[in-house]
Amino acid sequence: MNKKVNLEEKLAKFSEHWSPKTVAEFNGHDIMVAKLQGEFVWHSHEDTDDFFLVLKGHLTIELPDDKIELGPGELFVVTEGVEHRPVAKEEVHLLLIEPSGTPNTGDEKTAAQREFI
Amino acid sequence: MNKKVNLEEKLAKFSEHWSPKTVAEFNGHDIMVAKLQGEFVWHSHEDTDDFFLVLKGHLTIELPDDKIELGPGELFVVTEGVEHRPVAKEEVHLLLIEPSGTPNTGDEKTAAQREFI
Repeated sequence: MNKKVNLEEKLAKFSEHWSPKTVAEFNGHDIMVAKLQGEFVWHSHEDTDDFFLVLKGHLTIELPDDKIELGPGELFVVTEGVEHRPVAKEEVHLLLIEPSGTPNTGDEKTAAQREFI
Repeated sequence: MNKKVNLEEKLAKFSEHWSPKTVAEFNGHDIMVAKLQGEFVWHSHEDTDDFFLVLKGHLTIELPDDKIELGPGELFVVTEGVEHRPVAKEEVHLLLIEPSGTPNTGDEKTAAQREFI
């Protein structure tokens, strides 16, 4: 049987940035929490949309022709194939959803390893 | 291009209970907000897991042999095929994710209609 997930408790278990941790599985997707700070790489996912929900802090998602500014309780879905770059001036806590196995950088060679917490 | 979604703003747009509203789409799924109060019907979804994230209030998800108590910032995934009944003594605000077209009651005949807000 699945267990409930307290997002703050999960986020307290790690401190590294840009290393999403899986907290639950849903229809072949990983439900993940992550801490971001700084500028990520520009990347895209050819086969999946990318779901971001900000839990704490402020996140900018840079797009080719736009910038999405997200605060707590705000979400954004990057459509599959669209280049994007997450930028966090200060630490931000996120809920992310991607199909299990999706490389966070868009590239297996540079991706963070999947870890279940 | 997709737009950002502020969950509180979306929740302020309606008051009815047990009528999830779609706020974004993600990989063939509806990202929905809902207000619940009272006891729902026992039901299951044969083809999909069911994702619940509590945004405000407290929700009990009754399962055949268990009760999951969720507060704000807590999520739970009901595995496909598992009977469950959401119960909210007081109003609760939720983020839900289900494949687009999934009947909220598990049955097309009694399901709330899909509405995008």
